[in-house]
Amino acid sequence: MSDIDKKQYLIQDEPYYRPVANEVAMYEAAYAARMPVMLKGPTGCGKSRFVEYMAWRLGKPLITIACNEDMTASDLVGRFLLDINGTKWQDGPLTVAARVGAICYLDEVVEARQDTTVVIHPLTDHRRNLPLEKKGELVQAHPDFQLVISYNPGYQSLMKDLKQSTKQRFGALDFDYPSAEIETEIVAHEGNVERAVAEKLVQVAQRSRNLKGHGLDEGMSTRLLVYAAQLIGKGIDPLSACQMALVRPLTDDPDMRDTLDAAVNTYF
Amino acid sequence: MSDIDKKQYLIQDEPYYRPVANEVAMYEAAYAARMPVMLKGPTGCGKSRFVEYMAWRLGKPLITIACNEDMTASDLVGRFLLDINGTKWQDGPLTVAARVGAICYLDEVVEARQDTTVVIHPLTDHRRNLPLEKKGELVQAHPDFQLVISYNPGYQSLMKDLKQSTKQRFGALDFDYPSAEIETEIVAHEGNVERAVAEKLVQVAQRSRNLKGHGLDEGMSTRLLVYAAQLIGKGIDPLSACQMALVRPLTDDPDMRDTLDAAVNTYF
Amino acid sequence: MSDIDKKQYLIQDEPYYRPVANEVAMYEAAYAARMPVMLKGPTGCGKSRFVEYMAWRLGKPLITIACNEDMTASDLVGRFLLDINGTKWQDGPLTVAARVGAICYLDEVVEARQDTTVVIHPLTDHRRNLPLEKKGELVQAHPDFQLVISYNPGYQSLMKDLKQSTKQRFGALDFDYPSAEIETEIVAHEGNVERAVAEKLVQVAQRSRNLKGHGLDEGMSTRLLVYAAQLIGKGIDPLSACQMALVRPLTDDPDMRDTLDAAVNTYF
Amino acid sequence: MSDIDKKQYLIQDEPYYRPVANEVAMYEAAYAARMPVMLKGPTGCGKSRFVEYMAWRLGKPLITIACNEDMTASDLVGRFLLDINGTKWQDGPLTVAARVGAICYLDEVVEARQDTTVVIHPLTDHRRNLPLEKKGELVQAHPDFQLVISYNPGYQSLMKDLKQSTKQRFGALDFDYPSAEIETEIVAHEGNVERAVAEKLVQVAQRSRNLKGHGLDEGMSTRLLVYAAQLIGKGIDPLSACQMALVRPLTDDPDMRDTLDAAVNTYF
Amino acid sequence: MSDIDKKQYLIQDEPYYRPVANEVAMYEAAYAARMPVMLKGPTGCGKSRFVEYMAWRLGKPLITIACNEDMTASDLVGRFLLDINGTKWQDGPLTVAARVGAICYLDEVVEARQDTTVVIHPLTDHRRNLPLEKKGELVQAHPDFQLVISYNPGYQSLMKDLKQSTKQRFGALDFDYPSAEIETEIVAHEGNVERAVAEKLVQVAQRSRNLKGHGLDEGMSTRLLVYAAQLIGKGIDPLSACQMALVRPLTDDPDMRDTLDAAVNTYF
Amino acid sequence: MSDIDKKQYLIQDEPYYRPVANEVAMYEAAYAARMPVMLKGPTGCGKSRFVEYMAWRLGKPLITIACNEDMTASDLVGRFLLDINGTKWQDGPLTVAARVGAICYLDEVVEARQDTTVVIHPLTDHRRNLPLEKKGELVQAHPDFQLVISYNPGYQSLMKDLKQSTKQRFGALDFDYPSAEIETEIVAHEGNVERAVAEKLVQVAQRSRNLKGHGLDEGMSTRLLVYAAQLIGKGIDPLSACQMALVRPLTDDPDMRDTLDAAVNTYF
Repeated sequence: MSDIDKKQYLIQDEPYYRPVANEVAMYEAAYAARMPVMLKGPTGCGKSRFVEYMAWRLGKPLITIACNEDMTASDLVGRFLLDINGTKWQDGPLTVAARVGAICYLDEVVEARQDTTVVIHPLTDHRRNLPLEKKGELVQAHPDFQLVISYNPGYQSLMKDLKQSTKQRFGALDFDYPSAEIETEIVAHEGNVERAVAEKLVQVAQRSRNLKGHGLDEGMSTRLLVYAAQLIGKGIDPLSACQMALVRPLTDDPDMRDTLDAAVNTYF
Repeated sequence: MSDIDKKQYLIQDEPYYRPVANEVAMYEAAYAARMPVMLKGPTGCGKSRFVEYMAWRLGKPLITIACNEDMTASDLVGRFLLDINGTKWQDGPLTVAARVGAICYLDEVVEARQDTTVVIHPLTDHRRNLPLEKKGELVQAHPDFQLVISYNPGYQSLMKDLKQSTKQRFGALDFDYPSAEIETEIVAHEGNVERAVAEKLVQVAQRSRNLKGHGLDEGMSTRLLVYAAQLIGKGIDPLSACQMALVRPLTDDPDMRDTLDAAVNTYF
Repeated sequence: MSDIDKKQYLIQDEPYYRPVANEVAMYEAAYAARMPVMLKGPTGCGKSRFVEYMAWRLGKPLITIACNEDMTASDLVGRFLLDINGTKWQDGPLTVAARVGAICYLDEVVEARQDTTVVIHPLTDHRRNLPLEKKGELVQAHPDFQLVISYNPGYQSLMKDLKQSTKQRFGALDFDYPSAEIETEIVAHEGNVERAVAEKLVQVAQRSRNLKGHGLDEGMSTRLLVYAAQLIGKGIDPLSACQMALVRPLTDDPDMRDTLDAAVNTYF
Repeated sequence: MSDIDKKQYLIQDEPYYRPVANEVAMYEAAYAARMPVMLKGPTGCGKSRFVEYMAWRLGKPLITIACNEDMTASDLVGRFLLDINGTKWQDGPLTVAARVGAICYLDEVVEARQDTTVVIHPLTDHRRNLPLEKKGELVQAHPDFQLVISYNPGYQSLMKDLKQSTKQRFGALDFDYPSAEIETEIVAHEGNVERAVAEKLVQVAQRSRNLKGHGLDEGMSTRLLVYAAQLIGKGIDPLSACQMALVRPLTDDPDMRDTLDAAVNTYF
Repeated sequence: MSDIDKKQYLIQDEPYYRPVANEVAMYEAAYAARMPVMLKGPTGCGKSRFVEYMAWRLGKPLITIACNEDMTASDLVGRFLLDINGTKWQDGPLTVAARVGAICYLDEVVEARQDTTVVIHPLTDHRRNLPLEKKGELVQAHPDFQLVISYNPGYQSLMKDLKQSTKQRFGALDFDYPSAEIETEIVAHEGNVERAVAEKLVQVAQRSRNLKGHGLDEGMSTRLLVYAAQLIGKGIDPLSACQMALVRPLTDDPDMRDTLDAAVNTYF
Repeated sequence: MSDIDKKQYLIQDEPYYRPVANEVAMYEAAYAARMPVMLKGPTGCGKSRFVEYMAWRLGKPLITIACNEDMTASDLVGRFLLDINGTKWQDGPLTVAARVGAICYLDEVVEARQDTTVVIHPLTDHRRNLPLEKKGELVQAHPDFQLVISYNPGYQSLMKDLKQSTKQRFGALDFDYPSAEIETEIVAHEGNVERAVAEKLVQVAQRSRNLKGHGLDEGMSTRLLVYAAQLIGKGIDPLSACQMALVRPLTDDPDMRDTLDAAVNTYF
């Protein structure tokens, strides 16, 4: 850890996070037991923000890894790089996290190749170590180290799911869109609009979420509501703002667009 | 940014762009909120030109990346190159854009591997950062940085579509062929022909667009009309020019060619 | 073995292992004959812990390799690395194990490409050697060397199974969840809770195991029971602890979750 | 362009080309507008020869790239090579063509991966530039640069076709076998045989072309006729020459061979 | 051959091999004619041991290559490695065998990619040479060189078989499990048990071999019988020894296990 | 050609080749016209031997390339290798052949990836050049250069066939097993047995060839007959020799083996 500053992974300012249930207490107990944690929930409902908030609250560094299908074990663990003196080992982000005692957050873990996820196994049971096979080193995890993964159950396809031998290494917390009350508070705060505007946006979103599985793959996320609010804040009329930020990103189907546009017109 | 000149990415001369609706104002509001933007529309209707125009108008550098299926995360983010002193990190175009505060335009983003697009996620939410995992650096995006993507909804196959967790990070603007009035103006201006010739070419194109889904995958684009106009301007007779620039590129089906040739003969 | 310390592979402290049948004696006889051994059984029932325990008991180093689909023969056997003096051979973990006389444990061997497993063949018959073809060296295994593999029969798919010519090189030991009596003892010891709590957790687990094949892919593992016990030990109420550690990791199906929650409510 | 001589790409001697219609004038107009051109037609009908002829006629260098499925974007655009001073960029043939102002001819473009062809897009619209993403350079095409592609519509499979967004960047010229009159002239000239022999060969070819789709994938090309003429010129009897050069290369089906042999016997 | 010692490939001690028919004489005649030889037969019936025995008997070095799907032509033939003086060629095992005059044994050749096996063709006809295309050298095989391959006909799938043009380069010897008389002798000798015990083990094995195709993929191999005998020799009771060494490795099917256990109980 | 000796590719001694028709004269005329030649015929009927004979007869060097599915364009054309002074270009065998004026023989060309074969196109038409795109050099073929390919029409699958645009670049010569008279002469000469024995072997082979398509993929090749003759010459009884060299290599089907054994018994 000579050339990478552990401090860059500390969250400086308190992230805005609005708790919805007992998730903060549950996570703290899990962290106290260093139990690996899995966050489940739909797109844009606040899973990543929650991990940031907990890392800030616990005062631990956070290393986030966006998983993708091309990610190899070396991308997680590290590799030899060519140097002026020959090859030099460079720790991957998972190894860095294990060494410095960070919370390591694997975002959208189902995207990674099922079998690549096998490399996290020895870090998630009583061993708490990480064999760097290419380097011939066995890294014992720092006492502060914890692993967190996220995944979207509604999104997982038949081809992509976690193996049982991976799932059974994690405690799980469910996430969902917040209640109307809380979501309005979030949209008003983040989008910097009046409460009345935020309320209307949340109502539009709830209509769209009822259409999930009836022509829509997902309803409007809290994140899209914030975008719409921001456009309105920049002086765009609400109808245009909702079309750009809420309706058009969601679907290209003309009928579904009409339905959603009608919902927008109802409230604005 | 010592060896790459930021200035080379600035658009020097005002690009010719003919607005069709409120898209300029909408984009300006989105840029003011640094909201990521998705441009949807058919081939050759002016999406790339619009981004160039907006980059010129806002006075920001523009970095365009033509997406393709073989593009890896490293192609976007950067990689280590071998140097006389060992390996040296070279930023990819996305990283350059994040550092210098450019508008980064991912053209035909559905071509890229679905999961490669995951690397843009932390740049498109409140984090606005880009982890260079291989280098162990977390790049915080320049305040001027914005991400724009384009895609063609009619073209997307079942295999290729953006994930919901990607879609819901963008506001969307729809594009289509311009109205006859505006398209005539464009063809006359760009093809350097008289308005009467441009009018006829636009009428031919509209016929072909009505055949979309009835034997044609796409109608004639504005770009092809400009080509035909240019050939006529070089002294080629209109019938030969239309065959070369409008009919033959579009289809190899003999019946469909006859239909299109007949449309050409009607107007010329 | 100049730069890798053989001692780092010795198990320092006696691992907690609770024998369930004659498996310790059988393994000792197999080791005395240096017979390769295959451990079969479901996820989280103690196979890895058993190998650690036997390595400690026999006083032999243990090298564990988590198999995955991307693992190449070079990952097992070794490769040339670039050095300041040109290329330098680096032994892989299997070669290290053969040289120092370790027990080499290939965890979840069915994950590896069927044909990559061919490289272990000469180490598992009368030859007991490992050809390093790229280096032109034939490594004769140390007299203490033994190979152990694990696999989960219920998990294996049609695509992934060991070849007969591999299977027939191993003696096999079956593993399963321990009896209620023994499992209660384990959960109380590892989870640091009272016997009464452990008993209830084991009863919940047995209910879930009866649902295997009737809506669940696997029942709750001993490992999950220990997690639940630990959460309870941290002051979380038993219902929340069981939801987080037992129910939610296992399934996303609402009906199945209700069934499992009901089982939890019955005992707590 | 210090180490590659632009002159090696200039066609020294006038290639033998026999125009069949207005293709020379059409191409000249397209070149004057720097419009990208697509040549369509069956195997061996003279597309490559035509491009050579036009390059000679216009006095421009010609760089030909035979496309294939393994061709990567780097093969077209360039890559870093290792040098005594570290890595050194080497332009690919497309980049060389853009820099020196050559006509760049992508032969059998449908062979290339559909998405690799995306790299030519910015060279084929108003931008006329080529981003070397790995080098961080934006190459502005030389004013003389033009792109030409060829493809065989009868040959294209369902899997391999150009995308609409690629097709609509090109004007198209159709090619076919020449008329009997012109083809006889070509075979006599190129094969160095008397007109009477050439006439008979052309008649055999026409019979075979009528069988296209009725047991033959393609009819005999002009190139094969020239081969047969050359064998006759070397003293081989016409029947053996036609078997070797016309019949056996085309098909292994015994009935079809009998039919073609009969056609040969009719004329010789 | 400066840095690889040819002597390491000589078999020092006579391997235990029990001939079953005229295979030794046939092989000697084939070797005298340097005819390539193919050994066919089920798993664990003694093919590899036979080759070792013949190499010892003929006093020739033996180089064994375990084939697998990932094996490339370079793995057989050799490659350039990076050295302090640049790249240095390193012969692969096939090239070494051709140079030093070894018997080269390709074990489980059907595992190799069908087309990779093409590289052995010039070594298996009148040419007896090996072109090192990457090095620009044509290696003429040493007069003592001979190629031997093995394959398991019952195992080959529809996807994996040798090409006719490969098959027709080899004389073939069939192998099968030895007769009861001979197998008893082998098990008693190798397993170091009394003849009576060996006899019972062979009877169990014969029962299992009759089940091949009726629920078992393969019967128990001679190798497994030797394992069972060794466990009995270490003091394990025969029933437990047979379960571990004969029944459990073979199948996970409960009914089939009962059937095999019953067979074990019948004899012990 | 400083470090590769052109002379090593010259055939020193006259290869034994027994002409069966006018193939020598046809090939000489094709070579005189530098027409590329395709040799068609079943496995082991003498295609490779014929090319060797013609190269010897014409006094030209011969470079043979065994094609396989993993062969890349670089394997044919050449690549940059790392040297002490950086990278150094190394010609591939096709480039060497083009430079020194060799006959280049691509054996089993259908094995190569269809699209890799595209690289030979410019060498097989009027251009007779080979663009080394990675090196930026255009190699003009030596006047003596000629390309020869072989392929087995009976063997080609639906997936693997030459493209029309490749086929139509070659004159074709058909090969088949020689007549009984000639084959007897070949077997007696090559196998070093009496004419009477050779006659019987040829009769056995003819029986097997009649079974092609009726349970056999191919009949016995001349090469296998020579093997059987050689075994008989080494003192093996004819029945055992025929089993090893003729029957067992061909098929594993018990009924087909009985049929072939019966044919052997009829003649010996």
